[in-house]
Amino acid sequence: MNNIASYIDHTMLAPQATVSQIRKLCEEAVKYHFASVCVNSCHVALCAELLKGTGVNVCTVVGFPLGAMSTKAKAFEAECAVADGAVEIDMVINVGALKDENWTFVEDDIRAVKKACGGKLLKVILETCLLTDDEIVRACQLSEAAGADYVKTSTGFSKGGATAEAVSLMRKTVGDRLGVKASGGIRDRESALKMIEAGASRLGCSAGVKIMEGEVSDAAY
Amino acid sequence: MNNIASYIDHTMLAPQATVSQIRKLCEEAVKYHFASVCVNSCHVALCAELLKGTGVNVCTVVGFPLGAMSTKAKAFEAECAVADGAVEIDMVINVGALKDENWTFVEDDIRAVKKACGGKLLKVILETCLLTDDEIVRACQLSEAAGADYVKTSTGFSKGGATAEAVSLMRKTVGDRLGVKASGGIRDRESALKMIEAGASRLGCSAGVKIMEGEVSDAAY
Repeated sequence: MNNIASYIDHTMLAPQATVSQIRKLCEEAVKYHFASVCVNSCHVALCAELLKGTGVNVCTVVGFPLGAMSTKAKAFEAECAVADGAVEIDMVINVGALKDENWTFVEDDIRAVKKACGGKLLKVILETCLLTDDEIVRACQLSEAAGADYVKTSTGFSKGGATAEAVSLMRKTVGDRLGVKASGGIRDRESALKMIEAGASRLGCSAGVKIMEGEVSDAAY
Repeated sequence: MNNIASYIDHTMLAPQATVSQIRKLCEEAVKYHFASVCVNSCHVALCAELLKGTGVNVCTVVGFPLGAMSTKAKAFEAECAVADGAVEIDMVINVGALKDENWTFVEDDIRAVKKACGGKLLKVILETCLLTDDEIVRACQLSEAAGADYVKTSTGFSKGGATAEAVSLMRKTVGDRLGVKASGGIRDRESALKMIEAGASRLGCSAGVKIMEGEVSDAAY
């Protein structure tokens, strides 16, 4: 747990992000050895070019942040992102279908995106702030059945972000078979550590630099 | 202006919307003779089936609500939605490219979606709360140049919705050549009328029934 950087998907998903902000995000990710940069799909090709050979992955989002796109469109968005150089895809689950208890739809939606990923890493965002505990458990099970590699708590665009309780429940459900990514509202080192202790194996945050600077300060004093 | 209903895109874009809520939305749209229902793309086929022969259009959203999807993915999402029965497409402009003053990118992004619409109506959401007045004017000009049919103020998922000032500026810029859709935060008859007076030719709102009931009450007393 000494190396928080390796947990972090350095994230910038604001719609108004400019190319210079995305360039800076990539530079920071290289400097701090973050796991990936996580950007909207219009920036994937640029990030893939900038990060080539650095060991930092390019992660993007699909069906984001509502998850209510048609399955075909989600799958194609993933396919294009992979073609542009993304090696990690964070898709949003169809929350409405989950509420409808239409498990087949939810699972097929995830499976179609996994297929489109062509072997790249797939994380399924559950948007836990909208779900009951039973729905969180079910969403984890459906994600695993559909071939997902990770379950992820939040988009950061809904009414709440990651909680230790949700992360813990997700970890309990998927065991060590899948990764668990905590995201949304992780703004400092303390909350990052809290999520890792709850079972997170990846963290999505836009405050990565602040978290690392906190780490350095702690080590120095 | 006596018939507000004909201005309204009866809207439900919450990610957790269930099939029964979408059915109710369609029933209300038929009852009140709204212009369209506006739903996420996973619900287009159902709405097209339910609304066949009613005179109520099916409207959906593309690249929503961030507008930062790759152009190819936006265009394909539109193409799928049209195949599923959508006759109006509300796409989100690439706000980051607009901030970067990359006018060619912004225009090409819109043009690709227009082409994918195959003659169906295209509205371009500017997300005016993130833009300066100059950017609003430029976004209107680029939308018109790219073949859009409407410019639209807001997604309803960012920090602000429609304002009379933005609607007025958009109307001034596009003249009578394009439609102007006001959306986001239109919760009662008074604000609906204010937007129409400012130049809106379409209103996006989830409070359509409330607005109509207000209208009926006004007429009765």
